[in-house]
Amino acid sequence: MTQDSLHLYSYWRSSAAYRVRIGLNLKGLRYETVPVHLLRDGGQQHSAEYKAVNPQELVPALRHGTRTIRQSLAILEYLDEAWPNAPLLPVAARDRARVRAMALLVACDIHPLNNLRVLRYFENTWNVPQAERDAWVQHWIEQGFGALEELLEEPATGAYCHGDVPSIADCCLVPQVYNARRFGVDVAAFPHIARIEATCLALPAFADARPELQPDAPQGQA
Amino acid sequence: MTQDSLHLYSYWRSSAAYRVRIGLNLKGLRYETVPVHLLRDGGQQHSAEYKAVNPQELVPALRHGTRTIRQSLAILEYLDEAWPNAPLLPVAARDRARVRAMALLVACDIHPLNNLRVLRYFENTWNVPQAERDAWVQHWIEQGFGALEELLEEPATGAYCHGDVPSIADCCLVPQVYNARRFGVDVAAFPHIARIEATCLALPAFADARPELQPDAPQGQA
Repeated sequence: MTQDSLHLYSYWRSSAAYRVRIGLNLKGLRYETVPVHLLRDGGQQHSAEYKAVNPQELVPALRHGTRTIRQSLAILEYLDEAWPNAPLLPVAARDRARVRAMALLVACDIHPLNNLRVLRYFENTWNVPQAERDAWVQHWIEQGFGALEELLEEPATGAYCHGDVPSIADCCLVPQVYNARRFGVDVAAFPHIARIEATCLALPAFADARPELQPDAPQGQA
Repeated sequence: MTQDSLHLYSYWRSSAAYRVRIGLNLKGLRYETVPVHLLRDGGQQHSAEYKAVNPQELVPALRHGTRTIRQSLAILEYLDEAWPNAPLLPVAARDRARVRAMALLVACDIHPLNNLRVLRYFENTWNVPQAERDAWVQHWIEQGFGALEELLEEPATGAYCHGDVPSIADCCLVPQVYNARRFGVDVAAFPHIARIEATCLALPAFADARPELQPDAPQGQA
């Protein structure tokens, strides 16, 4: 597929957008960031303009030419199908399933529970105090990371979550570790995860995707 | 791929297991149900025996010969790669992305928020009353269904979520509608969703996968 223009609707601190930035970088694809500020103007993701891009009012979304792709994991699979170079998934069905299961562990069972809209619900509808909201976030990260750590004991693990090539599992893991640190989780308690994160961040594709380096990050974050 | 034995670790009322049952049926694959009772014995998903199958202590998991596949969407993709007949995803990358985005809307942004373990946390840790827990469940289903309904306005929608062949999007949608009814959501307010659910349930692959027909369903549910 030729490279039509790629526009990523993104917020610097969104871990779902961070996943896609890594995938785009791993593929060597140039893209333009369209910032959607989740906190400004009552949340720009709720604007009529952005709702037309994504009725879920969530980032990220990818514009590729005239088409819009939503949901970070669907975007990563799309990138992998449209640009087969630098594959983000291994070849064998059983290995692809292992990679997808690790990605989904993060994308289904950790991240959505801790997303901005959920924490806002607790704060605004149930008046849950900050300390209890933080404990909630930590609980699901630690539960998920504990299970992931066991999966990473398997011999199929290599330098990365699966073998020695970064995959969509790593695209999901590294942003989730970033979130874990933000919420005070002791990442060192999960040695495989900590090791893989460090290995990933040594690659420019991951390092360049970090939140603080994005064009919409506040000044002085880098 | 020949059919090695397939065993599905399942709970009759788990909507994630329901997705996989539909996929197996659509592929015409015979499988054996291994019941994991989520409420009995303090939750059989927490047993040492099941933790060895799935460290996440969640159903479903699929045993295929000697390998274990976890995460319902990874299982559905695995079925589609291992048995290409009766495809669960369309051919073109853009169409696959649309189907996956709809599946992920349910699997990431509705279901995990309303899962048993989350409702238990609210009940046991925060003492949230039943009525408020139910309102929480309804909120996320209605929010997700509202967005999905808009996506289903697109011309790519057919008899099913995408065109006239059932896909992983339908495998996710039908169980989520079942959950919606359980929690008192007015499904008729979402006409595309209600129509597609009815179309799906007219197929034996969907109808036979219904919770009340499973071998571990309580007597008298059917």
